[in-house]
Amino acid sequence: MEFSLSPKAKDLQTRLLTFMDEYVYPAEAVYKQQMAESGDPHFHPQIVEDLKAEARSQGLWNLFLPHKTEWTDGLSNTDYAPLAEITGMSHLAPEALNCAAPDTGNMEILTMFGTEEQKEQWLRPLLEGEIRSCFSMTEPAVASSDASNIECSITPDGDSYVINGRKWWSSGASSPRCKIAIVMGKTDPNASPYQQQSMVLVPLDSPGVVRVRDLKVFGYQDREGHGEILYDNVRVPATNLLGEEGGGFAIAQSRLGPGRIHHCMRSVGAAERALSLMCERAKSRVAFGKPIAEQGVIQTWIADSRIEIDQARLLTFYAAWLMDTVGNKAARTEISAIKVVAPNTALRVIDRAIQTFGGAGVSEDTPLAEMYAGQRTLRIADGPDEVHRMTIARRELRKH
Amino acid sequence: MEFSLSPKAKDLQTRLLTFMDEYVYPAEAVYKQQMAESGDPHFHPQIVEDLKAEARSQGLWNLFLPHKTEWTDGLSNTDYAPLAEITGMSHLAPEALNCAAPDTGNMEILTMFGTEEQKEQWLRPLLEGEIRSCFSMTEPAVASSDASNIECSITPDGDSYVINGRKWWSSGASSPRCKIAIVMGKTDPNASPYQQQSMVLVPLDSPGVVRVRDLKVFGYQDREGHGEILYDNVRVPATNLLGEEGGGFAIAQSRLGPGRIHHCMRSVGAAERALSLMCERAKSRVAFGKPIAEQGVIQTWIADSRIEIDQARLLTFYAAWLMDTVGNKAARTEISAIKVVAPNTALRVIDRAIQTFGGAGVSEDTPLAEMYAGQRTLRIADGPDEVHRMTIARRELRKH
Amino acid sequence: MEFSLSPKAKDLQTRLLTFMDEYVYPAEAVYKQQMAESGDPHFHPQIVEDLKAEARSQGLWNLFLPHKTEWTDGLSNTDYAPLAEITGMSHLAPEALNCAAPDTGNMEILTMFGTEEQKEQWLRPLLEGEIRSCFSMTEPAVASSDASNIECSITPDGDSYVINGRKWWSSGASSPRCKIAIVMGKTDPNASPYQQQSMVLVPLDSPGVVRVRDLKVFGYQDREGHGEILYDNVRVPATNLLGEEGGGFAIAQSRLGPGRIHHCMRSVGAAERALSLMCERAKSRVAFGKPIAEQGVIQTWIADSRIEIDQARLLTFYAAWLMDTVGNKAARTEISAIKVVAPNTALRVIDRAIQTFGGAGVSEDTPLAEMYAGQRTLRIADGPDEVHRMTIARRELRKH
Amino acid sequence: MEFSLSPKAKDLQTRLLTFMDEYVYPAEAVYKQQMAESGDPHFHPQIVEDLKAEARSQGLWNLFLPHKTEWTDGLSNTDYAPLAEITGMSHLAPEALNCAAPDTGNMEILTMFGTEEQKEQWLRPLLEGEIRSCFSMTEPAVASSDASNIECSITPDGDSYVINGRKWWSSGASSPRCKIAIVMGKTDPNASPYQQQSMVLVPLDSPGVVRVRDLKVFGYQDREGHGEILYDNVRVPATNLLGEEGGGFAIAQSRLGPGRIHHCMRSVGAAERALSLMCERAKSRVAFGKPIAEQGVIQTWIADSRIEIDQARLLTFYAAWLMDTVGNKAARTEISAIKVVAPNTALRVIDRAIQTFGGAGVSEDTPLAEMYAGQRTLRIADGPDEVHRMTIARRELRKH
Repeated sequence: MEFSLSPKAKDLQTRLLTFMDEYVYPAEAVYKQQMAESGDPHFHPQIVEDLKAEARSQGLWNLFLPHKTEWTDGLSNTDYAPLAEITGMSHLAPEALNCAAPDTGNMEILTMFGTEEQKEQWLRPLLEGEIRSCFSMTEPAVASSDASNIECSITPDGDSYVINGRKWWSSGASSPRCKIAIVMGKTDPNASPYQQQSMVLVPLDSPGVVRVRDLKVFGYQDREGHGEILYDNVRVPATNLLGEEGGGFAIAQSRLGPGRIHHCMRSVGAAERALSLMCERAKSRVAFGKPIAEQGVIQTWIADSRIEIDQARLLTFYAAWLMDTVGNKAARTEISAIKVVAPNTALRVIDRAIQTFGGAGVSEDTPLAEMYAGQRTLRIADGPDEVHRMTIARRELRKH
Repeated sequence: MEFSLSPKAKDLQTRLLTFMDEYVYPAEAVYKQQMAESGDPHFHPQIVEDLKAEARSQGLWNLFLPHKTEWTDGLSNTDYAPLAEITGMSHLAPEALNCAAPDTGNMEILTMFGTEEQKEQWLRPLLEGEIRSCFSMTEPAVASSDASNIECSITPDGDSYVINGRKWWSSGASSPRCKIAIVMGKTDPNASPYQQQSMVLVPLDSPGVVRVRDLKVFGYQDREGHGEILYDNVRVPATNLLGEEGGGFAIAQSRLGPGRIHHCMRSVGAAERALSLMCERAKSRVAFGKPIAEQGVIQTWIADSRIEIDQARLLTFYAAWLMDTVGNKAARTEISAIKVVAPNTALRVIDRAIQTFGGAGVSEDTPLAEMYAGQRTLRIADGPDEVHRMTIARRELRKH
Repeated sequence: MEFSLSPKAKDLQTRLLTFMDEYVYPAEAVYKQQMAESGDPHFHPQIVEDLKAEARSQGLWNLFLPHKTEWTDGLSNTDYAPLAEITGMSHLAPEALNCAAPDTGNMEILTMFGTEEQKEQWLRPLLEGEIRSCFSMTEPAVASSDASNIECSITPDGDSYVINGRKWWSSGASSPRCKIAIVMGKTDPNASPYQQQSMVLVPLDSPGVVRVRDLKVFGYQDREGHGEILYDNVRVPATNLLGEEGGGFAIAQSRLGPGRIHHCMRSVGAAERALSLMCERAKSRVAFGKPIAEQGVIQTWIADSRIEIDQARLLTFYAAWLMDTVGNKAARTEISAIKVVAPNTALRVIDRAIQTFGGAGVSEDTPLAEMYAGQRTLRIADGPDEVHRMTIARRELRKH
Repeated sequence: MEFSLSPKAKDLQTRLLTFMDEYVYPAEAVYKQQMAESGDPHFHPQIVEDLKAEARSQGLWNLFLPHKTEWTDGLSNTDYAPLAEITGMSHLAPEALNCAAPDTGNMEILTMFGTEEQKEQWLRPLLEGEIRSCFSMTEPAVASSDASNIECSITPDGDSYVINGRKWWSSGASSPRCKIAIVMGKTDPNASPYQQQSMVLVPLDSPGVVRVRDLKVFGYQDREGHGEILYDNVRVPATNLLGEEGGGFAIAQSRLGPGRIHHCMRSVGAAERALSLMCERAKSRVAFGKPIAEQGVIQTWIADSRIEIDQARLLTFYAAWLMDTVGNKAARTEISAIKVVAPNTALRVIDRAIQTFGGAGVSEDTPLAEMYAGQRTLRIADGPDEVHRMTIARRELRKH
């Protein structure tokens, strides 16, 4: 057993921490101002492009991709995990490094399942940070925790597919820079349950793509948006199929592994930032004659936060290492486990931080309430906690 | 022991439930539309006035006030509590019945401590629903859990008081209909700790009253607003003193009792609504071949919610009954207890409901996320949980 | 609403508290000594008989029975509940007042379903405190949470029933004073699921009654014992049938209501005693220069204990009042609710008290560890928490 | 990062697992019988000696000691941790491998601080498994969480020390094989707080050593016992001082690190066994027509147990690795963290297992209740959870 980072990861970690201090954190105020001045919640502010250019020049670009490609060296999940944690500390970091969801997952499945043409047309500009993408899987009408529920149809029709369905939580869709959706639907509703679904690439300027609305999360309107999209008789060429017909479920599964490491490590990073804010507040706030940091209740919150964060990090590292060494499938228990652990840990820590800040904690004067809202969605997205617990239990029971 | 409502309360409960069904719930969509059309987050929509007129004509008006006055009959806390619960089920109900915070607390202390002139000038129009008010106690710079921290000064100067201080969470201040603030500050920083504070009535159009900004709660901008107000050399006549000089802390204490019953019963009502929504969703949502209501985990959430809500309600009823029979002071343990119990109960129930709804739960498609944000502030407002627990513990230890 | 006790209950409460102080608490040390001297874990010490005689002479006898009979006046569940709480404070109190399980439940069903002969033979001596009884329902081989699982057979054979089955957790069976078992088994395995079971009275000296062993709870051997009993071809006269053939499930249900009030109020009483011990310890124990009662963490434990106990008590009172006013069946949600709430509350409070005492808390130097073990069994006995939650959820869902 | 075991640890793990299957688990029934036949709760049964001989012959002996000595090779904490976990699965394993507390800690400090004579006289026979030892630090009269409270005096008197004090929880003291106590007391009450204490070696047959009684844990009487010992004017030669005068606190600190790894890994092992028992029970027990393993609530328990155990193990491995690489002092946060995490995790898992077993779970028919009692003491021993949280919080706050 060896818990220290590889020299490569250690070097990237050091450089990324410096980049955060020198560029990302100072950019947060600039970002706020540029967004406010624009008056447009979906504005793409210049500071983001500046950060991207700087990150790229420093070699902090596309680090998320575990695969070696024409454009990337590939970095193991184990090596990327500690970097992903750092990107969780500022909402600007993931995009600055071109490591933001849902593009990361989309780039990964394009790498794994895309044709050369698809890669050239969509993967290359995504890796270049020129465009963004969304992923249309969840539907408002049915429980998305059970993939067999999907109602969207992707009907083969000569050299085309015709797509009909209503999707929501297509995150990123409201950005003017979002050009492509990967849509999951049923090509054959009569096939066996896990062979009915396929994925197709749908340019967002296709006729019939109706952006219905943006969903808010706890009152917050995300800059990239959480789109509800109506695919109304949308026609795409048959070459837009991703992978094989009937392979949608399998692609969806393979998309999840690394993405969960990313999400979970960002949750760990968010929790670390909340703990850090809580400690600073506790040391500076005085009540009943002494800093509240000296109160046993606050100390309990700090200690439990430290303990829970460290446990969540170690479990996510372990899952990443398993993925690298025995593969995503063998690591399924651990991948489900971190999906439950990391957001819940972050929520507990952030909630304690909110309570430590009092009124400032629920307002815009700290990032805490917005962090809470973001983490809260992660107990639902990509399968609710309950489905992941069911997965874990079944695999545990199978041992006996 | 007798747990049934008094005939009076039973009658009012029946009428209020009918009023909710016939007027309040149908008004929610109208409200949403009128607000959207106005484009002004602080707009006062006509539907609210319509509801007020109807409630008043039905005798469902000012029910919150335990005192008999020139204008009100008075209703015991025990009788009002079950009505307050019902008002917690729709955000429109409290104002419709003229039972909305912070006016209720302000009206109560004006009733108890106001001069005849103060009552005529401010209490009467508040009871008539003609104006609204705010309460400026909390300050951004210091921990408000410890009243001795207050920095705002109310300096006697001849026939006037001169007020200097920065307050926030002055809820209601952003409404154009808000005319008066009750401000707490120190008239004598050299007096004993609980005799330093006084309260004065400050018309919001006084020179020097600067409305700095509105605070959001999570991402939500409240219609009435949570104001940050700078009192910059504001001068009011000495007759604007509420009660006695040095009596501010005592008035603040006496303001808390009934207000906590109201808040807590509304929390109970909010929790009931969330549970009701959760049950409906669970019965209609299908996953893995059956309604999720048949899943043991969901059933556990429903059962625990029912148990916790009933316990929170009974404890609040008990506190109300103690206030009516032995007084607010003797009921202090119970008043602190419900302040901890009710919002935490509501948060747990709402969170389970959110999880049951999935993506809809965190979005604007259900009232749940906004309810969550509202209840979350109540673990902070009027003293954080931790201070109430300290109060309870000290009283318990004193028994030994 | 009215939370004060009736004059009758108030009077009994006052007298019982005096009896506890004057007789029961002082008897605890005597009891310990008499048990130690006997060297027999199932010894019946004289002090218990002394307490019984005193309680009876003071009119504190058989208070548990809600029914008016030839021998008892009957006391409502609402009036008995606060007395049951007091009996939870000392393990000697229930037997001293002839209000100990399982006799109480057995006496109640004998009152409700027994023939005159059965009452004369068994109910009268039980009410006189001359003998004790046990209840043989649970079986080691099957899940007792599902009554249809029962395997014990009660086969009609001419003028007799022949009983074959293995029962355990027949509490009380190891006392030499235990003379009679009420045994539940199937008289007709082909009837509809809830009409298969019947109950018969089985004298413990009947041939074929084999007392296999005593079960320990955690490491504790109960004086009255938790018996495993083999009924091996035991023959009793047909007149020993309790109620009707096929009526066993219904009798079992009707046995549960008042018994749960008793159990739950004793749990509340146990929790109160633990809280009281915790406060005394916290005030007297010094660490890091001050009594640990001044530490925020300890204060949080005390406050949460006070809050949770008060909520558990109120809910149990409410359930008792419902039973008295609308009947056991209509109160089923609340009866299930208190069954979940009361033991869990007691366990949390006792666990905090143990932690406050440190090493003394887990040892025999405080009653806490034994109280913990006793309360822990109550999460299992009479249906585990999980079955009660299921009951509550189903009734809640039925409203929608 | 690398989570696989070293070849050495892997080899030992494989051999130890085989030893458990072939010798330890089969010995449990033999042990039970030999103990029962002896009629003496402190009997030393032959089966233990048989296991020791076999373990020794297989090279599974004294693995706990991280130091290379005349008699041992030394094994890193990281390599020993996974072996310690396995020893947590049977109460017979630690002694069989000569890796049982408190001997392990005592052997370690004798290795580090003992003179050659002390090593020859006490360390050698301990390492040989010929005798056992106890550690007398905790006192009934004062809070042992604060070492400065210690009242026992070790007074220098010519060539001797004279010891006066009352100690309890001197675990192991009731074994007839226990020959030596390491006693902590104050040699100089006027020194600075952490220089007042010293440790001396006290043969248990010294005049003035009074074994007052054995403490039970919950109802269980431990074979080796938890002794209360009165040291009444006990005189030992000055050469019996361990380390330096005034060095007692420092020795106590250095004793804690590896011991906590051992304790925590055994807790993890206990939790694994409980989870395993729970899964087997859930698969075989039928209620409401299907194995309870198919119920969502049971699955949640299993999943949460798996998640929590894996997190506890990883954190303990991490702490062990830190101790090996940066030392006990630098790993202090993590050592405190595992002390909080591991027993609490085990308690949660065991409690769920108890609930899954129902009545069997609280009785002697499963090892669960006794495991619960044992783990419960660990939240108190070696500093209660609360003190460890305080340590962690202070170190966290110091970062800011």
